[in-house]
Amino acid sequence: MSTELVASIGDMRDRISEVRRSGAIVGLVPTMGALHAGHARLIEQARAECQRVAVSIFVNPLQFDREDDFRRYPRTLQADRELCDRVGVDFVFAPSVEEMYPMPAECTVEVGRLADHLCGRFRPGHFRGVAMVVMKLFGIVRPEVAYFGDKDAQQLAIIRRLVADLNVPVRIVGVSTVREPDGLALSSRNRQLGQAGRQSATALFRALQEADRQIAGGDTDPEHVKRRAAAEIPGDDRSLKLEYLEIVDPDDMQPVGRIAGPVRVAGALWVGSTRLIDNVLSRPPT
Amino acid sequence: MSTELVASIGDMRDRISEVRRSGAIVGLVPTMGALHAGHARLIEQARAECQRVAVSIFVNPLQFDREDDFRRYPRTLQADRELCDRVGVDFVFAPSVEEMYPMPAECTVEVGRLADHLCGRFRPGHFRGVAMVVMKLFGIVRPEVAYFGDKDAQQLAIIRRLVADLNVPVRIVGVSTVREPDGLALSSRNRQLGQAGRQSATALFRALQEADRQIAGGDTDPEHVKRRAAAEIPGDDRSLKLEYLEIVDPDDMQPVGRIAGPVRVAGALWVGSTRLIDNVLSRPPT
Repeated sequence: MSTELVASIGDMRDRISEVRRSGAIVGLVPTMGALHAGHARLIEQARAECQRVAVSIFVNPLQFDREDDFRRYPRTLQADRELCDRVGVDFVFAPSVEEMYPMPAECTVEVGRLADHLCGRFRPGHFRGVAMVVMKLFGIVRPEVAYFGDKDAQQLAIIRRLVADLNVPVRIVGVSTVREPDGLALSSRNRQLGQAGRQSATALFRALQEADRQIAGGDTDPEHVKRRAAAEIPGDDRSLKLEYLEIVDPDDMQPVGRIAGPVRVAGALWVGSTRLIDNVLSRPPT
Repeated sequence: MSTELVASIGDMRDRISEVRRSGAIVGLVPTMGALHAGHARLIEQARAECQRVAVSIFVNPLQFDREDDFRRYPRTLQADRELCDRVGVDFVFAPSVEEMYPMPAECTVEVGRLADHLCGRFRPGHFRGVAMVVMKLFGIVRPEVAYFGDKDAQQLAIIRRLVADLNVPVRIVGVSTVREPDGLALSSRNRQLGQAGRQSATALFRALQEADRQIAGGDTDPEHVKRRAAAEIPGDDRSLKLEYLEIVDPDDMQPVGRIAGPVRVAGALWVGSTRLIDNVLSRPPT
């Protein structure tokens, strides 16, 4: 069966109602398009666990803190459809902005202190916008399961908490980050990098790996670990700017004062005008 | 079939999943208990339109702005169950506070400017708490349809907007207010009134009726209508205090500057230490 493209909320609801009547389990992979092998892994996991898979492709204006970033975000619907067809997606839900936001919302979702640090600190309103669109997509597609990438660890933690706090009837599955052979995490934004930027971009994962080594080696002082890790970002490469590198609790995303259990080490690196994020889960020696 | 009492979220989800597999449509009547003939009318309408009816009974601490009001709120679970059994309710979902709020929520629902006036102005956080518990109940029971009383007009308008803004897959039905022969709107709080208070309480509906007469008679000036209406509250009855009497747009709940179409006339009256609300929908002459 080939992938069906659905653009309206009404049509999507109708398709899902038909699927429901057949008793099939629906998995949703919410994306902003510009699909890559990381998305393909999310879809494959959904395929393995669900009878029907829907992929939403929607560049959500509410989660962009900068208008130019929203405009510049890659849009590759034709290639995305082909990938979805290849990996066996049943529905691509690709609504317009007007379809999703016919009027400014009065009722919104707040995400609390899970957005206080990391990306939330540097992108005001970003996670509120993410939470909003995820709730809307859940309401439209009504999946039993939804799949999100570990690369966006703060987003994943917030969605898990959102679903717990509001008793949303969707099981949330986090899927491992897919990396290039040199360690760079796959991201739709990678295609914005020039050749030199592509080379420099690996510094972020090297820094995270250095932090992981320190933590696995028994260093319990986050400030010390962060200094060692940040030293992996070459100071003489003027195209690079480390926005943050933090060590946080993996559930509530609060910085830890001492590393005494599993932690999420997360960073954001500007490579020229492109902002990349990545993270690793690290454990102290037992 | 007699009413089944369900106390845990997991059990409620299980029951609903069974019902879903049978293809039945589920209607939800969210209440805080202390059921009366107004609730019975909501349930009857649900029975007429759905194959299964769930009534939730939960005195939601989040929507009380005053702790003493929360404590004092009537709780009559045994009588409520009997009423539900009598009118043919399938499930009474009556969770504990710990079941609904095992930890303080980080992710919450904001209701925007629809809460700026009327009750929202005098009960800070009230509608945020209502929106929160309604979203949770919708996520737990997953009804196709939910029934709310017109008496709580601002609540109904906010829930309609919440469902539209977040694409919540629930149809919202408003059900007419049930009144005593002398016009007093049925309310769980009426049982807090003493005999004298019960007599005095009718002043609120008389004021709303006076406003309706003025509007139907062609008065387009909300300030003038409000003055005429407020004069119906006896100034010499020291137990009465009019908290507000407003004339608002029926959809966005904003005060109107001129009465040029249908309006909601809404009031809150303190009768001793009991706060009563009521409203009417009024139309200017065509």
